Amino acid sequence: MKRVLFTPGPTEVPSEVLEAMARPLIHHRTDEYRQYFLETTRLMQEHLGTTQPALTLACSGSGAMEAAAVNLLSAGEEAIVVEGGKFGDRWRAICQAYGVTVHTVSVEWGRVATVEEVESALAAHPKAKVIFLTHSETSTGALFPIHDMARAAKKRGVATVVDAITSYGVYDLHFDRSDLDGVVWGSQKGMMIPPGLGFVCFSPRGWELVKESKLPKFYWNLAKARTALEAGDTPFTPAISLVLAARAAMLLLAAEGREKVFLRHQRNADATRQAVRALGLALFAEVPSNTLTAVTVPQGVDSGAVLKTMERRYGVKIAGGQDRLKGKIFRLGHIGYYDEGDISRLVQAFESALLDHGASITPGAGLRAAQESFRKSQASAAARVG
Amino acid sequence: MKRVLFTPGPTEVPSEVLEAMARPLIHHRTDEYRQYFLETTRLMQEHLGTTQPALTLACSGSGAMEAAAVNLLSAGEEAIVVEGGKFGDRWRAICQAYGVTVHTVSVEWGRVATVEEVESALAAHPKAKVIFLTHSETSTGALFPIHDMARAAKKRGVATVVDAITSYGVYDLHFDRSDLDGVVWGSQKGMMIPPGLGFVCFSPRGWELVKESKLPKFYWNLAKARTALEAGDTPFTPAISLVLAARAAMLLLAAEGREKVFLRHQRNADATRQAVRALGLALFAEVPSNTLTAVTVPQGVDSGAVLKTMERRYGVKIAGGQDRLKGKIFRLGHIGYYDEGDISRLVQAFESALLDHGASITPGAGLRAAQESFRKSQASAAARVG
Repeated sequence: MKRVLFTPGPTEVPSEVLEAMARPLIHHRTDEYRQYFLETTRLMQEHLGTTQPALTLACSGSGAMEAAAVNLLSAGEEAIVVEGGKFGDRWRAICQAYGVTVHTVSVEWGRVATVEEVESALAAHPKAKVIFLTHSETSTGALFPIHDMARAAKKRGVATVVDAITSYGVYDLHFDRSDLDGVVWGSQKGMMIPPGLGFVCFSPRGWELVKESKLPKFYWNLAKARTALEAGDTPFTPAISLVLAARAAMLLLAAEGREKVFLRHQRNADATRQAVRALGLALFAEVPSNTLTAVTVPQGVDSGAVLKTMERRYGVKIAGGQDRLKGKIFRLGHIGYYDEGDISRLVQAFESALLDHGASITPGAGLRAAQESFRKSQASAAARVG
Repeated sequence: MKRVLFTPGPTEVPSEVLEAMARPLIHHRTDEYRQYFLETTRLMQEHLGTTQPALTLACSGSGAMEAAAVNLLSAGEEAIVVEGGKFGDRWRAICQAYGVTVHTVSVEWGRVATVEEVESALAAHPKAKVIFLTHSETSTGALFPIHDMARAAKKRGVATVVDAITSYGVYDLHFDRSDLDGVVWGSQKGMMIPPGLGFVCFSPRGWELVKESKLPKFYWNLAKARTALEAGDTPFTPAISLVLAARAAMLLLAAEGREKVFLRHQRNADATRQAVRALGLALFAEVPSNTLTAVTVPQGVDSGAVLKTMERRYGVKIAGGQDRLKGKIFRLGHIGYYDEGDISRLVQAFESALLDHGASITPGAGLRAAQESFRKSQASAAARVG
């Protein structure tokens, strides 16, 4: 049986990327590696819409989040965290671990905070130096209006740092045209490579804050990483095989074209959402992200049994809810290396497993709706071309 | 041309390990992954000679060093660092970045500190809580007597933490029978996999110190990593493909047998050292480690040109000196996946490149000495068996 991941990270890895990791290892202190590393960095920056240095760290996404925080702040300073899920809450935990005073804008999981709520928090906490946001909250599938929030923060002189771990490669973050001061992402989502790399990019204003920051840092010293990058280097031994994987992946994304990559994610998400609605099921997130589709578990359905059946009988692995959402939602991931046929595979397995466990849905309704969604978007694209 | 790494990390990766990384990615929240992870952890612990939890972090070796330090100490506390090279000095830099007061036992690069020097430092700094050591100093090729130093520290109630990044898999660290309280290692040396994983193991006394430690930590929170490991889990997304690579490598090492692995390293090191001596060249380190052979660059020889020729004409990459040793030593690595034939390839390339650049050595003398060294050790092994 074929096995395909539709989890919101790690995601499917293209064979070109797997092949890059299977080649005999090269040393990182060579011109060959330095060229690959610089090329990969340039491609990542282009994808982010920036000329600022994109820094590569050997760590998972949470490590990159910590790196961003400890390079911008000092103990006793204040920050605002906007959270409506497990990963928003991670910003709070990181800041508090380092003695930063955190003011939280909390919304119910599944909801997104409004720009007005953020403006109120900014007004209430005039000493806040940084506001930490989550773009696409992986635990709920909700998409936060980060660009509007960053604009509000900038007006008050507050720097905005966004966890784009799930959204890099899915949405156009147009960093240099935005009011964002920091973006963090990871390897195992839209970049289509295995986990193990984290990335940080700061705006010029972000780099100003780095100079003032006094939180202790050694491995996360981004000023050193920035200097090393100028020579195609890293302060510590890089995760060579993952960097070469990143190169292979970024070449694939560049060949497809960034606009087309974003549009493909939009279409995959639209089709998945249409399928869910056609099955009479409810989308969980107030504003659903194109990264994953969270579905409320219908009453009477044992979500654990559905997940197990999808995986064992149909070879399709999706995710359930985490923490307080355990048993309450399904999370269907479509971040990265997926096309129309993959979405059919996903919907087919989801429908079939629901039917296997007695859910009252119309067989084929989801599949038909997904197909129709793709055909409509093709027709509208063709109409635009013609 | 075949290209082979004889650098002191990264080292050659066996094809079994490359193949493990080339397979489609599996998700880490599955029984399959958990079993692989727990099996890998058990094999790593057996190799280290311990039943204590070996913790796997997604980072390079320096990250694991930082993790060890920030979990044992609090700001304002005192530590002793024994250093005789670039990596010993890294312990100092990490501690100082976190506000730990460091007392240094410094020896000239290439020398090793004595147990007496360590005892003097322990006596002079009775408030020191931890002593940080380097087992095999990668920048000089010197081997430090860590077990004797740990014994001296234990007598004074001081915990010993050792950077075994280069020595794990080369030497029997027999952790549970030693006086060590912490060991740190990485993936890209004796473990024969690409860089990107760091490992930490603490003794029960080390875990006692973890409870007292107040240095800020989030990604490096080892208490959380220990709890997660009990369920085959990690607090953050693991570097899945590298963990599966580690499994493949540890299975290879277990199949060979740990005693045989250590003996193979001893023989490879002996043969390399005999070759160097036979060429009339000087070993740089006072006590040479079995991990790498540092050779003093003979007068009149341009080490950069020799390194370049070895790499471009003979496909063999070794390392030169770092920092203050730049241009002064060659470093011939033989950590990990090397056999008798590999050492011949290494010596042949080294000899040839030296000859190409006008060094006055006897052609073939090194090769003959290496071969003789291997044949002698086989003969003595055969005599023991017979």
